[in-house]
This record gives sequence, structure tokens and C-alpha cells, in this order.
Amino acid sequence: MELYGYWRSSASYRVRIALHLKQLAFDYKPVHLVKDGGEQKSAEYAKLNPAKLVPTLVDGELELNQSLAIIEYLDSKAGPLLVPEDPKEAAIVRMLALDMACDLQPITNLRVLQYVSGTLDAGDEGRQAWIEHWVSSAFAAFEKRLEKHAGACCVGDEVSLADVCLVPQVYNALRFKIDLSPYPRLLQVYENLQQIDAFQKAQPDQQPDAVL
Amino acid sequence: MELYGYWRSSASYRVRIALHLKQLAFDYKPVHLVKDGGEQKSAEYAKLNPAKLVPTLVDGELELNQSLAIIEYLDSKAGPLLVPEDPKEAAIVRMLALDMACDLQPITNLRVLQYVSGTLDAGDEGRQAWIEHWVSSAFAAFEKRLEKHAGACCVGDEVSLADVCLVPQVYNALRFKIDLSPYPRLLQVYENLQQIDAFQKAQPDQQPDAVL
Repeated sequence: MELYGYWRSSASYRVRIALHLKQLAFDYKPVHLVKDGGEQKSAEYAKLNPAKLVPTLVDGELELNQSLAIIEYLDSKAGPLLVPEDPKEAAIVRMLALDMACDLQPITNLRVLQYVSGTLDAGDEGRQAWIEHWVSSAFAAFEKRLEKHAGACCVGDEVSLADVCLVPQVYNALRFKIDLSPYPRLLQVYENLQQIDAFQKAQPDQQPDAVL
Repeated sequence: MELYGYWRSSASYRVRIALHLKQLAFDYKPVHLVKDGGEQKSAEYAKLNPAKLVPTLVDGELELNQSLAIIEYLDSKAGPLLVPEDPKEAAIVRMLALDMACDLQPITNLRVLQYVSGTLDAGDEGRQAWIEHWVSSAFAAFEKRLEKHAGACCVGDEVSLADVCLVPQVYNALRFKIDLSPYPRLLQVYENLQQIDAFQKAQPDQQPDAVL
């Protein structure tokens, strides 16, 4: 399998975590989202993924975008299952995963930040306020959900798709120096997950295209 | 089951389509997103859904937010299946669904539009430009994906989660008077789906809380 991704993209980060948890071999193809206006906008990459976003996973003739669709597909190839088989448990895992992947990540990704700071002329200060607003809103709700569902991980004690989606958003929040002290459970779960080898291997700073 | 939703919320609209396709009975509980600053922000509703968003589905003791998690859960209760069993087909359906539900809807929903037009002071004109930018970007990519995957529906000829996610976004785009002529396949699929009874019953204008 080939994974087209970018070290700092949180959706790419999710897929890397899943691949490492499942110990599936993959060829990592970096797509630089900033250099030369963004390599994801090249004609070659747009042919593979017309949305000009990362990640894209290629598995034989199958070309998949959307990290959550990719990870559910990987569940059919190798364990551990990241979405449980029981429908009620699966629903809770997917719900927490989507809280991060739908209600937070798309609003704070690179292209939206560029529009806010650039096109809308909000500048660096407006961009920071934007990030803080959406992160604090999403994390406050997530902290409440963890009170109901969490153990060592987001849902009980087993690593799931919810964890795979949480960790990259915490990484981003720390990068933008958001105060996370109002979310002690979220931070505790994050720290628990950081102990796991697959989560370490998937970290942005550990990727070959990282610029440190 | 009880569905807390709002007539114009595209995520609520998705769940209504799925419930009607499956002919599952439900009690519709309107949550007015605008009146009195938004009923979703009330203490009572926030207890049920701390993200203060719609929809929320209550099924016995199970309280679920996130429309896609809800619809996959409904797949375990009654047919027709909206996510196919075959892992590759399921991946393509989920990918197209998420193209709408993750890469378009969250960026153009009410709370984000309020921030753009209000907090960022972009006004009605800036809000319209924002919507046009993200809709055209997402629909152009979706049109390409349909070339590869569509039949009468988004993926082949069977109604799937992808269709359930597409229709509310087209409704929104039409509401904001976006020119959809560059997306003929998308419009054709939309028109095919509009012929189906469940899609008609789920339309915003058909809901008891619609303000026409």
C-alpha cells in the first residue's frame, strides 16, 4: 500500500497511527502542502485525489481518500479492530471520532486558516483567535463525553478510532499553544496513548518529510 | 427513538432520510437553532449533547450525536443497508459521504457562518463568498469522483450513505443560489434521488418546525 500524506496533516497522522497499530507495511509518499503553493494542487496529485487534500491511500486498484473511510477499510485487512463489532459500541466510537474529525479538524485545517488569515484579512491574531475558539468549543464537549465513556482510552480501555482521531487534534492544539488545563481527562487519555509504540512512530516529527 | 433536529440542519436532514428509507418510526423533537440565541445552547439540551449541535438520536439508554455514527447504527437495526458489506464498496461509500460531511458541511454550517459574518465582520457579502468558495471546491472534486463511481446514485445504482450526505448539501447550495451548472452529474444524481419517497419526506420544508 502507498500512503500519500504530509507530516503535519492530522488526517494523515490518523492513518499512520492505524497502519502502525495494525503493523501493516506501507510506502510513505510525502506531499508537501506548503512548498511551491502546495504539491497537492499539482495536476498529477489532483488526478489521484481531485479534492487536492491528503491523505490518499492506494491499495492495488483502490484509491481512497478520507482518513476515516481508509481506517475502516484497514479494519477489514488486519486487527486490532479500531471500530468494535457491537453496533452500540461502534456507534459511540464513531461518534467520538467524528467529534474530532468532522466538528473540529475541517474548520481548523491549513486551507481554512489560509482563507481566514489571508482572504478575510484576519491576520495572525485573527487566525489564533479562530483556532482557540473552535478547539476550546470542541474540547469542552469532548471532555464531557469522556466523563461518560472513557477509561484509559476514549471509550473504555481499548484503543479505538476515537483515540486515533483525538491524538492529532491534541498535537495541533499544543502546537498552537492552546491552554489545555480545562480538559484533564482529555489530557490524561492523550498521555496514555502517547506511551504506545504505534502512536510514537506516527508522530509528525518522526516522519521523513518533517521539517524541524 | 427520538430525533432531536432542526428542519434546515443538513446533518438532521441526513438522519431523517435514513430513518424514512428504513421506515423506522421516530419521534421528532425540534431544536430551534436561531430562536432566543439558539435552543441547542439551553442547559437541558447541552446535557443531552454537550457539543450543542443537532442532531441527537435517543434510543433507550443510548444517546448518539454525529449523523454518520447514527446512520451506521441504524444500519444495524433495519435495511436497506446504507453502507455495503463488502469492504471496498463500503470504503468508497464512506469516502464520498465524508467528502460532503467532513470537507464541506462543517465549514459552511450556521455557527461558522455566524463567526465569519459577525466576529470576523465579513458581513453578508463575505459570508456568501465563503459559501461559494467551499461549495464550488467540494462540488468540483465530487463531480470528478462521480465520473468514476456513479450510476443512478453516487455509487452505482443503489442508494447509500453517500447519497444521504449529498442531498442536504445540494439543498443548501440551492438555498444560497450557487450556480450548479458546472456539476451536471451531481445534479443528475440529485434529481434521481429527489424522486424517492423517503428523500421527499425528509425535506426541510416538510418538517413540522419549518418556517416558510
